[in-house]
Amino acid sequence: MSDFSKGAAYINGKIVPINEAKISLLDWGFLHSDATYDVVHVWDGRFFRLTNHLNRFYASMDKLRMSIPHTPPQLQTILTDCVKASGLREAYVEMITTRGFPQAGSRDPRTCTNQFYAFAIPFVWVTPPQQGLHLIISRQQRIPAESVNPVIKNYHWLDLVMGQFEAYDQGGETAAVVDAQGNIKEGPGFNIFAVKEGVLTTPASGVLEGITRQTAIELATAQGYQVLQKELTPEAARAADEVFITSTAGGIMPIFKIDQQLIGGNKKGTIGAVTQKLQDAYWQLHSDPHYTTNINY
Amino acid sequence: MSDFSKGAAYINGKIVPINEAKISLLDWGFLHSDATYDVVHVWDGRFFRLTNHLNRFYASMDKLRMSIPHTPPQLQTILTDCVKASGLREAYVEMITTRGFPQAGSRDPRTCTNQFYAFAIPFVWVTPPQQGLHLIISRQQRIPAESVNPVIKNYHWLDLVMGQFEAYDQGGETAAVVDAQGNIKEGPGFNIFAVKEGVLTTPASGVLEGITRQTAIELATAQGYQVLQKELTPEAARAADEVFITSTAGGIMPIFKIDQQLIGGNKKGTIGAVTQKLQDAYWQLHSDPHYTTNINY
Repeated sequence: MSDFSKGAAYINGKIVPINEAKISLLDWGFLHSDATYDVVHVWDGRFFRLTNHLNRFYASMDKLRMSIPHTPPQLQTILTDCVKASGLREAYVEMITTRGFPQAGSRDPRTCTNQFYAFAIPFVWVTPPQQGLHLIISRQQRIPAESVNPVIKNYHWLDLVMGQFEAYDQGGETAAVVDAQGNIKEGPGFNIFAVKEGVLTTPASGVLEGITRQTAIELATAQGYQVLQKELTPEAARAADEVFITSTAGGIMPIFKIDQQLIGGNKKGTIGAVTQKLQDAYWQLHSDPHYTTNINY
Repeated sequence: MSDFSKGAAYINGKIVPINEAKISLLDWGFLHSDATYDVVHVWDGRFFRLTNHLNRFYASMDKLRMSIPHTPPQLQTILTDCVKASGLREAYVEMITTRGFPQAGSRDPRTCTNQFYAFAIPFVWVTPPQQGLHLIISRQQRIPAESVNPVIKNYHWLDLVMGQFEAYDQGGETAAVVDAQGNIKEGPGFNIFAVKEGVLTTPASGVLEGITRQTAIELATAQGYQVLQKELTPEAARAADEVFITSTAGGIMPIFKIDQQLIGGNKKGTIGAVTQKLQDAYWQLHSDPHYTTNINY
């Protein structure tokens, strides 16, 4: 019997259990990482900022000259069907478009039939909300925007993965990657913010335009904090009162330690006041109909 | 009945027809392009420079901290089994290792079980040996070595794909990507050489250390040509007598036109003398037991 409890996927027009979800080995989404994706989460049976994720997903496809036969409302139905099939009330929901398969013998991406896949699996946390991470600022350079536009959400993660290994080698739990000048860019699946004397700083460019990042900026601004989108140096991050990360995989989550040093002299290992306020506000939005879309299970 | 005529793949310990070869949607080889691969070709029933490809593949895995349970001789048996199942006497044979699947809920690549896949499909040509391509030098920058080491053969191709689209927009057939200084690096699946007054130039760094590239260097040196591994500017390429590309997908293949201009005043659209000599020598190696491994079908 099919087991949907671990998640459900949409493959070739059908909803299948996640452990039966398979793609062709020859899809250029795999063999050339010629793909874009987006991730939206479901909390307490509601999608969070679904329209923003759908808009970004279609914009990414457009930039890569890909298309799918589904309109945004049809795509919403597919994602909803995945979540409903899984029965999950807290879920991590991914939509993917790949270049697909070329005509036999061709190496021309224009001959490809683009493919669409989606899946819903149990909610994923970069780290639980109160459990701050130990971040290492790696020497690994983020792929620059001149090579791959980070605004197009993509699977080119080897720089991030090598950064992670560098972090593990140094006793850390996750990594920040930098640009050629050594400025902090982002981490594997998250944006980064530093808080100093009530002013928030997050890198302006060369990073994914995260929707959780955008939400954190909106919430901080609404709470009267100044938010600067500008270069974040390792020195500024280390000297910050608080550092936090943002991701659809967990929302707003604290960093307690950078390299071998506690942030803001946080000897107790507790979440900072600004991070806590933003985190509370973030989760409050999850019951606000303006930000959420109810799923009828 | 199973049809192996289009190729065969090795998946989860079994040889299957290529159109049944599928991988899990959740493999980080797909979702993070956290993978390495190599391609060897078979010509007239013989692998070409198999040991070199196997050595590079294991070296790439090592750099990415991946491993497979197969020794090089076992891997050779798997690749041979794929070719034999397909019956192809001219084949494109790919071996792939991915990060695989993490433990449930984990984002730590160290918890992953690496996966190995392989397949043999009909021989692929970037372009037929006598049919020179129209190359466009795109503005697209190759992912720099500081972000992803190109010596690790990888699927991070979005820069190359966007270069291809730029080339198509300008009426070209394929693209060269450049570095931040505008020097030519490589193209989608090939290295690039320019020939000027009997001296060959090919980029020294920031490119895949192609085995066909290496073969071309060895052959040219043996034939008394000087080979310079140094930066290749667009100006030098445009002013060359001949330009050719090297790839396992077709060997040594000519470029006839760069941007809108014929190379070396080649008005007839015929292959240049040096390129022809190297191409002939390249294919002669394919019956040399020192360079080839016979397959017992």
